[in-house]
Amino acid sequence: MGNILVLFQSNTGNTAKMAELVAEGAGRVPDIELRLKSIKEADVEDLKWCDGIALGAPTNFGTVPWEMKKWWDDLVDKNIWPYMDGKIGCSFSSAGAIGGGQELNCMTLNVILMNFGFLVFGITDYTGPGISAHYGAVQQGEPRSDGEKEACARLGQRLAEWVSTYIDQNTASHPLKQNYKRLPDEFKQRKS
Amino acid sequence: MGNILVLFQSNTGNTAKMAELVAEGAGRVPDIELRLKSIKEADVEDLKWCDGIALGAPTNFGTVPWEMKKWWDDLVDKNIWPYMDGKIGCSFSSAGAIGGGQELNCMTLNVILMNFGFLVFGITDYTGPGISAHYGAVQQGEPRSDGEKEACARLGQRLAEWVSTYIDQNTASHPLKQNYKRLPDEFKQRKS
Amino acid sequence: MGNILVLFQSNTGNTAKMAELVAEGAGRVPDIELRLKSIKEADVEDLKWCDGIALGAPTNFGTVPWEMKKWWDDLVDKNIWPYMDGKIGCSFSSAGAIGGGQELNCMTLNVILMNFGFLVFGITDYTGPGISAHYGAVQQGEPRSDGEKEACARLGQRLAEWVSTYIDQNTASHPLKQNYKRLPDEFKQRKS
Amino acid sequence: MGNILVLFQSNTGNTAKMAELVAEGAGRVPDIELRLKSIKEADVEDLKWCDGIALGAPTNFGTVPWEMKKWWDDLVDKNIWPYMDGKIGCSFSSAGAIGGGQELNCMTLNVILMNFGFLVFGITDYTGPGISAHYGAVQQGEPRSDGEKEACARLGQRLAEWVSTYIDQNTASHPLKQNYKRLPDEFKQRKS
Repeated sequence: MGNILVLFQSNTGNTAKMAELVAEGAGRVPDIELRLKSIKEADVEDLKWCDGIALGAPTNFGTVPWEMKKWWDDLVDKNIWPYMDGKIGCSFSSAGAIGGGQELNCMTLNVILMNFGFLVFGITDYTGPGISAHYGAVQQGEPRSDGEKEACARLGQRLAEWVSTYIDQNTASHPLKQNYKRLPDEFKQRKS
Repeated sequence: MGNILVLFQSNTGNTAKMAELVAEGAGRVPDIELRLKSIKEADVEDLKWCDGIALGAPTNFGTVPWEMKKWWDDLVDKNIWPYMDGKIGCSFSSAGAIGGGQELNCMTLNVILMNFGFLVFGITDYTGPGISAHYGAVQQGEPRSDGEKEACARLGQRLAEWVSTYIDQNTASHPLKQNYKRLPDEFKQRKS
Repeated sequence: MGNILVLFQSNTGNTAKMAELVAEGAGRVPDIELRLKSIKEADVEDLKWCDGIALGAPTNFGTVPWEMKKWWDDLVDKNIWPYMDGKIGCSFSSAGAIGGGQELNCMTLNVILMNFGFLVFGITDYTGPGISAHYGAVQQGEPRSDGEKEACARLGQRLAEWVSTYIDQNTASHPLKQNYKRLPDEFKQRKS
Repeated sequence: MGNILVLFQSNTGNTAKMAELVAEGAGRVPDIELRLKSIKEADVEDLKWCDGIALGAPTNFGTVPWEMKKWWDDLVDKNIWPYMDGKIGCSFSSAGAIGGGQELNCMTLNVILMNFGFLVFGITDYTGPGISAHYGAVQQGEPRSDGEKEACARLGQRLAEWVSTYIDQNTASHPLKQNYKRLPDEFKQRKS
């Protein structure tokens, strides 16, 4: 059984909706135990417990909101760093605008995880025409289209696949061995 | 007269379309001389000539394509670094997908400019509902909606405003003194 | 008179020492009014007052500490964003280790400033053999060598030069018109 | 047998020296097959072959040199993206100065790897007083002190440990199960 924590902060509900979709996607993989918790609900025991984490927060002024950062900074006194090495992580974020810093925020969330010794990833998949989550799932407002919703879910699914493959040693869970479409038929990559 | 260079690389035409919009926006400001050039057309004299630059490239594998980087790396032999300090810069990028690394690419383009001593900026404006260019103009494919097109144009306009204000000392050009809408009526900021 | 705010957070005193050096360097430029304040001492009026800012914080888990971020996040209610456009900014950070995320932290501090409409910069100068501050001044622990100290001071000096040149229109303050050494004699650039 | 590729570009020999140290460190882990290749020597078959990669390049103007980027951009025609998912990666870089962009370059190298579906990591370890490689091994010039050399070697060792643990399923290789010192006695963390 792989343990996955979806840990999020949400101010207006948009990132919370992303978190639910991420958790839903993680639930697609067998033998995964899930916790979906806001930073108000989660504590250091949840972090120790998990094998993989999906970390989500709104983008405020281009980066991580203070509440989420405080959650991590407060761990200094818990004497757990650097004993969390080898967990697997990814990130997601909603902002008020496309171009509002979601990718930058996701990468900074990834940096926090890397600092704790996590291995971090994004997804190669396109979950709709012109929609991906290469460095984390990014969203303007709340997820609306099927492709946007699936970007969140696929991120959670991928996290569960990596946890199952690498931590639970179920090599059959590797995403390259699955039959679902990672690049949909209607996908025509727009090159820029 | 402030001199503005819109310097771009385009592989499929999408970033070229962005570049044209950026140049169009820069042309809104009086007494600006403009050059719109691809990296195949521009050389070190264009860089020396300009007071401000808008630098655009497709996002390939999450960052700057090699051709654009080569344009800058080749300047090593020109003995111009570090004698370009104090020019003003910004960036723009198109990628195949939302979440495809456009923001990361813009920030890396900004980093190249900072390394050359440029002052770099994004725009605070929303140019449509849920559309901004806080760290550079980002686009999936080509600009299609009015708000997307205006994000590119506004970036060029802002560049011209800063060049006029700071390098040409026309303080009347400062964006906070203008009457155009930086936050449109229909704008309702979605907080995340 | 250009107004410069050196705004910092320090936990153990190292970033405070950097802040003092940054302020000292800013004081080298004539006709600059200076405020050196910790985030506990500064408020929104200091931000409105300044023409240029040097923003410094320790690197905690690879990025901005929560206290510094809270200082900025709390401005949401002050209704000042996006009316700060056109100020000039830069950043500095100390961490426990070389490779500990100082550059990443500086760039995230720069991102916060860009979000507020600031033009941000680093310095091209080498302030000692193998020492620069291309994206902000970075330090392991406290500044010890002359070159490390000068990296902080030069950053502040450059900020003051840009504020004087661009906001006060004293074009004689432009760094390319100064006689001090930006690349010291003993400098031999190690290429990698 | 886990397969590890140390893939590097070097212009003056400094990054090449880092690459050799990274390879040496990877060789500390049993049952690892190693290839140490410059981008001139390596091709797409090396990328397919590897389970883990350490990717190193000089920092030129704050980011990846064009030659290294071209190596990756040229893979577009090889039809291997997105079929490399699940490999493990890390990065290293040398620059002419501390503060010269090494961390930014490492993160951009990490971004390229993430785009290809790799899981990327840094090391939590301190390899000397005030020396780490939290987001990749960073260096001014060539590695000189024992701690600097060990930062490179430890990065390679960690890569081999993750490949052994996760891809070869030798759970005994997990770094948290090893006896070597990850935080040396003489280590006194300077907080900033």
